[in-house]
Amino acid sequence: MVKKVHGGDIYTERELPAGVELVDFSANLNPLGMPQAVKDALCQEIDTYQSYPDPQCRKLRQAIGRYYGIPDSWIVCGNGAADVIWRLVLSRKPRRALLPAPTFSEYAEALECAGCELCYYDLPQKSGFVPDEGFLDAVRPGIDICFFCNPNNPTGVAVESGWIRRLMERCQAAGVLLVLDECFIDFLEEEWRYTALPFLRDFPGTIILKAFTKMYAMAGIRLGYALCADEQRILQIGQTGQAWSVSTPAACCGIAALSQRDFVEKTKRFIAKERSFLQKGLRSFGLQVYEGKANYLFFKAPVPNLPQQLERLGILIRPCGNYRGLDDYYCRVAVKGREDNVRLLNGVRKILKGKADDEKEGNELGWQKQL
Amino acid sequence: MVKKVHGGDIYTERELPAGVELVDFSANLNPLGMPQAVKDALCQEIDTYQSYPDPQCRKLRQAIGRYYGIPDSWIVCGNGAADVIWRLVLSRKPRRALLPAPTFSEYAEALECAGCELCYYDLPQKSGFVPDEGFLDAVRPGIDICFFCNPNNPTGVAVESGWIRRLMERCQAAGVLLVLDECFIDFLEEEWRYTALPFLRDFPGTIILKAFTKMYAMAGIRLGYALCADEQRILQIGQTGQAWSVSTPAACCGIAALSQRDFVEKTKRFIAKERSFLQKGLRSFGLQVYEGKANYLFFKAPVPNLPQQLERLGILIRPCGNYRGLDDYYCRVAVKGREDNVRLLNGVRKILKGKADDEKEGNELGWQKQL
Repeated sequence: MVKKVHGGDIYTERELPAGVELVDFSANLNPLGMPQAVKDALCQEIDTYQSYPDPQCRKLRQAIGRYYGIPDSWIVCGNGAADVIWRLVLSRKPRRALLPAPTFSEYAEALECAGCELCYYDLPQKSGFVPDEGFLDAVRPGIDICFFCNPNNPTGVAVESGWIRRLMERCQAAGVLLVLDECFIDFLEEEWRYTALPFLRDFPGTIILKAFTKMYAMAGIRLGYALCADEQRILQIGQTGQAWSVSTPAACCGIAALSQRDFVEKTKRFIAKERSFLQKGLRSFGLQVYEGKANYLFFKAPVPNLPQQLERLGILIRPCGNYRGLDDYYCRVAVKGREDNVRLLNGVRKILKGKADDEKEGNELGWQKQL
Repeated sequence: MVKKVHGGDIYTERELPAGVELVDFSANLNPLGMPQAVKDALCQEIDTYQSYPDPQCRKLRQAIGRYYGIPDSWIVCGNGAADVIWRLVLSRKPRRALLPAPTFSEYAEALECAGCELCYYDLPQKSGFVPDEGFLDAVRPGIDICFFCNPNNPTGVAVESGWIRRLMERCQAAGVLLVLDECFIDFLEEEWRYTALPFLRDFPGTIILKAFTKMYAMAGIRLGYALCADEQRILQIGQTGQAWSVSTPAACCGIAALSQRDFVEKTKRFIAKERSFLQKGLRSFGLQVYEGKANYLFFKAPVPNLPQQLERLGILIRPCGNYRGLDDYYCRVAVKGREDNVRLLNGVRKILKGKADDEKEGNELGWQKQL
């Protein structure tokens, strides 16, 4: 098994032009950064970090339960959503899995480690990688588990909950465990139109994955969780893997984060505005930018080495050539703050037009006036 | 799979007599607590926690490599040693494993999850659970992996490195991957007499497990690692499981901890003195206390419910009835500071003699004068 490439590698040393700082568009984190309340909680609770964590994460699960109005017994926490993916796969030991392509690579890695056969459904490129009836038809008896990421990573395509409910029904009828990855759904302005949370009680064969990582910019702290109305399944996931996967700092930060409702609303508005700005900017250079709804944008560049060229300017973006169904022309960029977004647009322009704007980076640029 | 009981459950609410605080002897953490340098590092580096961690833990591995004088490529880090156990088992997918009994239960849990057959070697109770020739003879072709914990948990029995080298030779000859868990070895005053570190280069089929958890009282922060001269094996372990298992706070704390050499020496002396005190105290009540060398003591009580009785006094100890090869009379206690150790001894005396000392807890007690 060769590990797939992920975004967020800000640790590899790079030779950058003098005075140029690295800016990372390859990891999809909240550009508003970690809320102060989370930072405060991390340091305030420091005297509790020497003991082992609570393996059951009771206080954190209570806080999550209150946040969504669901029982604590529907919740299991992990060392990031990625840890939960591995543990749920190992607890289920599926023989055959259905996955859309392209999608987040961690599902396939965990499934392959468990010796599971992978059945891919290639999302139709022509219609912008939007899932269609064909995906629903691919849900059949004999499939043990199906992963579905909404909004999808890396495309950003979000599917409304009516279609998701049909997927849940198909899976229930065919005896397929459905894992809905909603790790990016809280960035959507009309989240309620997309989330499957209201259907959870009626579909105990559906697991929803969530993370603190992205919304609260807590990626380094590692905290994710799964929600499922089947309490036995939640227990099984919790009992697979080590006893103390969630660190005490992560649990403390998670509890503090859940109090930040205004921060979430502010983030949604901020992302909507900047995503629109970035999308228009990228399109103004002739790039094919897909209709993403999350805090990142997915596009097809006219050259295959845009990420490598941008890296020389100190701009990291996510090349998507290692996703099944995509090639080196596809890229993903995070939506960041205005100054960073302008720097990205200026970098892309410089590469595609072969020259930089006369104005300095970070200022209002000529092409902006066209938007 | 039913999760085994571990120590350190300070989170379950208990009804204690008024004014009585819970004291935890069930988790084996350094009684000197987390070094201030570790706490400082945790808060100082807070602005780096919003990005994803470095999946390769480069800075931390460099620090560990320098600490032991070994190449970074021999090191893989995890979310506590328990995480490393799971990942190495899943990367190897062994079919048959050799385990001593009793020993740390996490090995068996990970192996069972991977569908591995477990072959137990019952350590001889009569000779104090000290491993003998029989264990070496049990290492045979057909065994894929062997776990050996030195000093052993829960017995505290430490085996000198001459015997360990013979075990390494047997494993190498039989093609058995040997996992030596040395998570408690740095509490030993003469650590160099026990550790297999000097043999690592000659035995690429041996993995040594280590943790920051115990020595630096970082159990809530989660940080452990494995050392092995087979770089391919180290890569495989690192590629099994999620990409970001080590949090950035854990990596920062680990680097700070490795600078605390004086703290380690001070701890060794402190533990040696208090272990001797506690051992004599427990023996003075007629308990059968084994010759443990770590920061915990293992004993056989004259009653099967000592842990439950002590819990009512606010004293948590580790009942060992759920270890294979042991019954409810066996218990494990951490070596803590003098005041806590006196409280434990007074509690045990109260239960066994049916009455408390006249003197107040925490003061010099009557029985102490006999020691």
